[in-house]
Amino acid sequence: MTGKTQISHPILRYENGSAEWKEDIVAAEYPVTIKINGEEFVTMVCTPDYIEDMAIGYLASEGVIARFNEVKELRADDNNGYVHVTLTKKIDHLHQQMQNKRYITSCCGMSRQSFVFAADVKTTKTMRTREVAVSPDDCFRLMEEMQQSAETFQETGGVHNAALCTLDRIVLMRVDIGRHNALDKIYGYCLKHGISLQDKIIVFSGRLSSEILLKVAKIGCEVVLSKSAPTERALELAEDLEITSIGFIRSGSLNVYTVPERVALP
Amino acid sequence: MTGKTQISHPILRYENGSAEWKEDIVAAEYPVTIKINGEEFVTMVCTPDYIEDMAIGYLASEGVIARFNEVKELRADDNNGYVHVTLTKKIDHLHQQMQNKRYITSCCGMSRQSFVFAADVKTTKTMRTREVAVSPDDCFRLMEEMQQSAETFQETGGVHNAALCTLDRIVLMRVDIGRHNALDKIYGYCLKHGISLQDKIIVFSGRLSSEILLKVAKIGCEVVLSKSAPTERALELAEDLEITSIGFIRSGSLNVYTVPERVALP
Repeated sequence: MTGKTQISHPILRYENGSAEWKEDIVAAEYPVTIKINGEEFVTMVCTPDYIEDMAIGYLASEGVIARFNEVKELRADDNNGYVHVTLTKKIDHLHQQMQNKRYITSCCGMSRQSFVFAADVKTTKTMRTREVAVSPDDCFRLMEEMQQSAETFQETGGVHNAALCTLDRIVLMRVDIGRHNALDKIYGYCLKHGISLQDKIIVFSGRLSSEILLKVAKIGCEVVLSKSAPTERALELAEDLEITSIGFIRSGSLNVYTVPERVALP
Repeated sequence: MTGKTQISHPILRYENGSAEWKEDIVAAEYPVTIKINGEEFVTMVCTPDYIEDMAIGYLASEGVIARFNEVKELRADDNNGYVHVTLTKKIDHLHQQMQNKRYITSCCGMSRQSFVFAADVKTTKTMRTREVAVSPDDCFRLMEEMQQSAETFQETGGVHNAALCTLDRIVLMRVDIGRHNALDKIYGYCLKHGISLQDKIIVFSGRLSSEILLKVAKIGCEVVLSKSAPTERALELAEDLEITSIGFIRSGSLNVYTVPERVALP
């Protein structure tokens, strides 16, 4: 998929008491429909790049596929906004119905009723390992690096950046107007290429909501870094799933919200 | 609904080279399921206040109801996270299916294929009137007022604020961790109380995506102000729906993206 991710638009700019017309750059937004075995499955609005990865990441997140080799064919039809996915199996028709159903469980030995959707119970992993030892300086450096790489963000505003990193560097960065899409693009890439995740962490530009925490757990990372604030439910999930969540990473300061055992303090 | 919208959480705060434990305030996140005539319709994750209004705004946005008098009974069950809605009619069982189907049309004399979801075509209004004449100073003042009123935002970060305003003042402000939920809470209130919208504008803390523009059109406001950036599709929709969109409102500067005829410049 090679759609334009940025588009020029004329604006009336008002500054210090006077107004003038100029050209501005805005983020593109594009509807994509995933078709599975010829049938429409879901429509999502996204930034038009890496949409095959996004489709794979989404289907894995929702538990429709468990691994990439269940995908027989994967093809983006840019002109019509479709991603065609052919699976080696029939799709469970209960799947889409189930996704929207309230289904709270206390599986995985969880003390709280953290899960709302059935698909999440099936697909999240609890991060019992402690492979990563992240220092505050790692956090500042990776966040800084992501922001510098995020040209689209700097030019247009209004997009989310997500990066898969080792403690040293960014391995993969994706941008999307949709918070989850950026992570689905990373997840799909990892599945397709069999990327090992034990030593990786996720760096995210936006707020840590429960949905973001669930995605991180599905991808299978122990640590998530954010420029912004978490929500309470995200923190509950982070504790239950044993994910280290660090937020409000600004120059020289940050907050460790959960599982501080993975943070190497001075 | 009177759930707690903020919750205290212990954090490890790192600043200027040293770390200490302290209590932090985070935004609550709460799953709510709307039941219509006894059947589950949709589950959304939100900030736990004004959830009856949110349910009504959501159902109107999706075209399930056209006006508030189609609601016979409306009751929030806080303990179990339900909003029970009894309608005076049977619910169209095609409704939920239709929502996810790609259904592009060029209705309303639109030049572009701006609509993705069938429900949007039914429920958006094109704003042919020019009742509002907003000045840059109005924009700065209203944005400032909203930010000052947004105590939750200031304390916890990570929530979106939306306000319904006249040019003079904020009439109604709602907060939510979900972008759309804040606007649905406003929409539901307006429907319930028959608030006139001709002279009103929407002020929003977050990015102007196509979904936000659609909500503004559904509510029926001519002007939307934002602190942040728009996307390209949002601007297409704003042009087609004849909504004035103003973004990047910061001290002394702003960008008028669409329909500048409603902006009173010096």
